[in-house]
Amino acid sequence: MSLDTAKEVIDAAERRANEIDNPMVVTVANSEGNLVAQHRMDGAWLASVDISRNKAYTAAALDMPTHDLEEPTKPGESLYGLQNTNQGRMVIFGGGYPLERDGDIVGAIGVSGGAVEQDMDVAEAGVDKFDDLSS
Amino acid sequence: MSLDTAKEVIDAAERRANEIDNPMVVTVANSEGNLVAQHRMDGAWLASVDISRNKAYTAAALDMPTHDLEEPTKPGESLYGLQNTNQGRMVIFGGGYPLERDGDIVGAIGVSGGAVEQDMDVAEAGVDKFDDLSS
Amino acid sequence: MSLDTAKEVIDAAERRANEIDNPMVVTVANSEGNLVAQHRMDGAWLASVDISRNKAYTAAALDMPTHDLEEPTKPGESLYGLQNTNQGRMVIFGGGYPLERDGDIVGAIGVSGGAVEQDMDVAEAGVDKFDDLSS
Amino acid sequence: MSLDTAKEVIDAAERRANEIDNPMVVTVANSEGNLVAQHRMDGAWLASVDISRNKAYTAAALDMPTHDLEEPTKPGESLYGLQNTNQGRMVIFGGGYPLERDGDIVGAIGVSGGAVEQDMDVAEAGVDKFDDLSS
Repeated sequence: MSLDTAKEVIDAAERRANEIDNPMVVTVANSEGNLVAQHRMDGAWLASVDISRNKAYTAAALDMPTHDLEEPTKPGESLYGLQNTNQGRMVIFGGGYPLERDGDIVGAIGVSGGAVEQDMDVAEAGVDKFDDLSS
Repeated sequence: MSLDTAKEVIDAAERRANEIDNPMVVTVANSEGNLVAQHRMDGAWLASVDISRNKAYTAAALDMPTHDLEEPTKPGESLYGLQNTNQGRMVIFGGGYPLERDGDIVGAIGVSGGAVEQDMDVAEAGVDKFDDLSS
Repeated sequence: MSLDTAKEVIDAAERRANEIDNPMVVTVANSEGNLVAQHRMDGAWLASVDISRNKAYTAAALDMPTHDLEEPTKPGESLYGLQNTNQGRMVIFGGGYPLERDGDIVGAIGVSGGAVEQDMDVAEAGVDKFDDLSS
Repeated sequence: MSLDTAKEVIDAAERRANEIDNPMVVTVANSEGNLVAQHRMDGAWLASVDISRNKAYTAAALDMPTHDLEEPTKPGESLYGLQNTNQGRMVIFGGGYPLERDGDIVGAIGVSGGAVEQDMDVAEAGVDKFDDLSS
């Protein structure tokens, strides 16, 4: 995951965040969950600095979107307790997505700053950009 | 728990992981929950490095399989909150097992990398190997 | 500290890093030490992700360049032990600078990825850019 | 860094540790500092579980042997304070080495369990094995 690619992905997410008028924090990590780039848009929540980074970490560390963790981590479901692993870095609501090329994970994006639906919407704009760059 | 025994246990778990085509992280700890050996199979999730190690820790630290913690740690149940103790090292879903000889705990195995059923399946192959070596 | 300003400051630092052929991690924080933007250039050290961020934190949190902390934190000097405060976020070698406008701190830059002299060189290119934008 | 390669590197280090009659903990990490495999030889220090892992982390995170950090992190030297960064994961004495192929870092080895000279001796046996496998 090059910095140039990460910046283009983040720019696309920021454009979408501006369209829906919701400032976000956007992070791109590499396939081992380490940061490549992170931007906090003006007015975005402080809490989202951590959440955005850890959504990217979670999506990279499990190679799946973070919204797929909402159901199985509920009390009584099979992965209840996953949210307590990885030293507090697991985020179990939407806004984190793996970035894949030819079926292999090469990184992840994490977006935080609005309701989960907004976070997912903005993150998906980043995923789409990544897919365009990879095709 | 000797390193040689730990390696045989891990090898047995890895063979089972290969049979079910699911790369895993496998850890063997001693009776005090400290690491003896850990292997991350190619393609296994990064998140499983932490989870595997801590499943082994939890199983050793409580002398019970981690899947026995799923029910009592639900909200309203007797051990709700256990998952917040031990500096985030308690894992409350399946895949961790104590390794016992003549009724005494001598260590534990922790497996992570798939659905809980797969983790348990692979960990049990390790437990079986340990029992064979001890008989 | 707006994201647009932070990006311009980081871009200036990256240009200098390219001139001296030393990939860097560059962070801009706001006056409260919280992240505005962070970029890891291709090939920059993993360790620098943490160090860059915390140089910016330290410079904001103490309103001084981090190289001013090298002397007073030596054993026997007045601030010995400062490096153990703030949950490990204090960085006491060069590469972090406050960003000031009209004598007031508005943020900080932290650069890591080379020898301290290179880190300072690149960070100063970011400070210069910030001063240009503010004048 | 495949698990098979990591195991061969660790085996070579363990053979050397046996030759010098000093039980060690040996870790191989990938290029982003995450664990691939770790073995604690019978009788090796508990403290070495952490130190071995973090020597591998440090060597990967800075792409240099950890003994190169001994001098510059002394009080009065340019990197004094580096040992307080990266949340306590920086190890600044010998026993950690990057593992490189064609000039690119692909992982790192960290050995702990004896005097620094013994740690380095054993780690170098692992580095030599890695170089043999890569040639």
